[in-house]
Amino acid sequence: MSLSNAQPVDAGKAAKIASHTLATLSSSARNDALTAIHSALSQSKDEILAANARDLTAARQAAEDGSLSASIVSRLDLGKPGKWEDMLKGILDVRGLDDPVGKVTLRTRLDDGLDLERVTCPIGVLLIIFEARPEVIANIAALAIKSGNAAILKGGKESTESFVAISTVISSALSSTAVPNDAIQLIKTRDVIPQLLALDQYIDLVIPRGSNELVRFVKSSTKIPVLGHADGICSIFLEQSADQELATRVIVDSKTTYPAACNSAETLLVESAALGLLPKVAEALLAKGVVLRCDEESKKVLDEKLPANESIQASEPVDYDTEHLSLKLAIKTVDSTEAAITHINTHGSHHTDAILTSSSELAERFMAAVDSAGVFWNTSTRMADGTRVGFGTEVGVSTNKIHARGPVGLEGLMIYKYKLRGQGQITAEYGEGESQKKWKHEQLPI
Amino acid sequence: MSLSNAQPVDAGKAAKIASHTLATLSSSARNDALTAIHSALSQSKDEILAANARDLTAARQAAEDGSLSASIVSRLDLGKPGKWEDMLKGILDVRGLDDPVGKVTLRTRLDDGLDLERVTCPIGVLLIIFEARPEVIANIAALAIKSGNAAILKGGKESTESFVAISTVISSALSSTAVPNDAIQLIKTRDVIPQLLALDQYIDLVIPRGSNELVRFVKSSTKIPVLGHADGICSIFLEQSADQELATRVIVDSKTTYPAACNSAETLLVESAALGLLPKVAEALLAKGVVLRCDEESKKVLDEKLPANESIQASEPVDYDTEHLSLKLAIKTVDSTEAAITHINTHGSHHTDAILTSSSELAERFMAAVDSAGVFWNTSTRMADGTRVGFGTEVGVSTNKIHARGPVGLEGLMIYKYKLRGQGQITAEYGEGESQKKWKHEQLPI
Repeated sequence: MSLSNAQPVDAGKAAKIASHTLATLSSSARNDALTAIHSALSQSKDEILAANARDLTAARQAAEDGSLSASIVSRLDLGKPGKWEDMLKGILDVRGLDDPVGKVTLRTRLDDGLDLERVTCPIGVLLIIFEARPEVIANIAALAIKSGNAAILKGGKESTESFVAISTVISSALSSTAVPNDAIQLIKTRDVIPQLLALDQYIDLVIPRGSNELVRFVKSSTKIPVLGHADGICSIFLEQSADQELATRVIVDSKTTYPAACNSAETLLVESAALGLLPKVAEALLAKGVVLRCDEESKKVLDEKLPANESIQASEPVDYDTEHLSLKLAIKTVDSTEAAITHINTHGSHHTDAILTSSSELAERFMAAVDSAGVFWNTSTRMADGTRVGFGTEVGVSTNKIHARGPVGLEGLMIYKYKLRGQGQITAEYGEGESQKKWKHEQLPI
Repeated sequence: MSLSNAQPVDAGKAAKIASHTLATLSSSARNDALTAIHSALSQSKDEILAANARDLTAARQAAEDGSLSASIVSRLDLGKPGKWEDMLKGILDVRGLDDPVGKVTLRTRLDDGLDLERVTCPIGVLLIIFEARPEVIANIAALAIKSGNAAILKGGKESTESFVAISTVISSALSSTAVPNDAIQLIKTRDVIPQLLALDQYIDLVIPRGSNELVRFVKSSTKIPVLGHADGICSIFLEQSADQELATRVIVDSKTTYPAACNSAETLLVESAALGLLPKVAEALLAKGVVLRCDEESKKVLDEKLPANESIQASEPVDYDTEHLSLKLAIKTVDSTEAAITHINTHGSHHTDAILTSSSELAERFMAAVDSAGVFWNTSTRMADGTRVGFGTEVGVSTNKIHARGPVGLEGLMIYKYKLRGQGQITAEYGEGESQKKWKHEQLPI
């Protein structure tokens, strides 16, 4: 790993060259590098937390001046209970995952002595752009090395001190391993994101981790493929046969456990015939401080059934296209499951959407027709998370329509190559002609 | 299918809406549509070939004026022996392939009664931009319908008459099937490619089929992911232990069977210690009319061993970075397998590269380290083709580093969604706390 003041183009070129070596390292060589990182970070806890405290002091000052949001300050803090331990545990968790490199996913005998194999391999060079969270450096370095990808990391300026401290430790730890020095590049130079995004000859995939604004900026500024999501407008459809108690707890969990998360619900669609279920749901949400932005029909029901409450408000059209990221929920009445599906496919962000119903038939229809990465039945949208679904960790949640969708773990950092082993066969000898050979195309066991 | 003079934005919107219906059709409904297209085209052969003859007349005129290349005229001709039959057979071949929709690729029990499934589904809306070849309309319509994707097709102006004739037949055939009318949109309006490329809210993937210039233009003009390749700079490395006869036939096949194809060899790397094998290879290439662009070392050997020949020429550096697409081969001497790998990773286009050697150890090292979609041992680079490798057909060959690489068949037109079926489980009840439930994360059989 190198902590670099290098020009972006040099960093990109060096990372690409290093990626070719990293891609051929054995599983144990890559795992040994993770062990080295883990042990070096463990030994350097005090100096890293001291550096993090300096970032925090500056950030708190900026927050008082109003130039930085309190949520960024909170995300900066590596000293929060459990955060340091989680970061270290994450490295060992990644080390313990199956090796994603070199898996054979297709094997075809084209002809005798001419066997095709499709084998997983690393993508190449990743560019990770992240905002405050300093622990991301360790997570991403671990994921990149495990998956055999080189990575260029560019962090937010608020976490510079933590970033330098962690990087220095990781860099020194990697120098005694088989991982090439340039495989993980940490860019300290400021204002270089546009230059990095222009390096499509060296960088194969960009993963922005941060605000919608960051993701939108990245997507509109590069020819390099971008993995991630700008919006998380997740909806829940409350169908008439839903169980009252189940509906209430799932909706409250989806909305209130972490309103700033991309997998939190932003819209509640209520079937007309299910409006009788709404007051109890609304009561529970109001008790958690949620503001309800209601269409006419749902508002009428709530006004009738619940005591007057200023958090029961009339919605505007924009509410149904907004990722509030706060304790605000848009509520809309729809005629049918079909209408709910159409609303979600039109207004949603193809992230995660749920149906609450007792009918498996309606649930299956909803899950088939909703065009989202996650389609859930009778469970919380917040289940859309790499750790919860068993991927060990995630580089993010993707709303892309190609490559990887939903929570993205190691698998999303892989591509494949086709290996074809022959004995001198040439294309000219195969064909429909009488003297020509025919293809066998026999699928072999994997 | 609609043959449309619609504005691109309306076509895009209609295709997106239709894609949601198409995505939920059964396998038999999609196969029935292919049967209908096949039989309608069979019955309309005469009128389509008459329309194609009008395109050809205009194109031959343009070729005589010098405003159109002879190769485009040749690609236009649907009346060439076998071409019509191949087009029709292609539709039935696609129909006969396994249904790519709805395959379960991961099944995890997160907890009792909370099962996650990853299921393949269509990407959504494809935009296919192609140059002259009129048969592509039928191929792509078949692939799109089979894979459950809507498609917007924009053809080259040289094939307008053929395009309209084929489209009218397909459109009428589809109207009696379950495939929505707007699922396949054919854009006749001219000069709308930039407008189509701006529709990232409706179009999920662009597949350009045509010249490098077309692909480069598309890649630099859109935020939509692009599947394909601009260049095909394929190399062959001749290692010292290679068999003389095998090397000669593989190199001749790779270079001469279709020089304009992306999978044809452009560069021959010869190990210093293998220069003794070169004269016989060169002799066979010269006999096929190949011009050899040689570095100093290889030229010296050929000048000594072969009669003087004006097709043995000194190379310039640019030869090693050029896709000649003609009977021209760049030859370079390298010291070792490692040097060949480095040359290919630096100068190649990550398409398909081959090693000719008797050493399985060197072959495996080469195939592991070369960063290309296809890495071949002792066989022709021209094997990189969807039909030859058993995919039935292909939408193209991809040099992308994400999603799909190499020859892309139906699988490359699929993505997946995560279906999660629960019984009211919420995230707040899981965690490390004493009273909290723990994840099971049990892999279930697929």
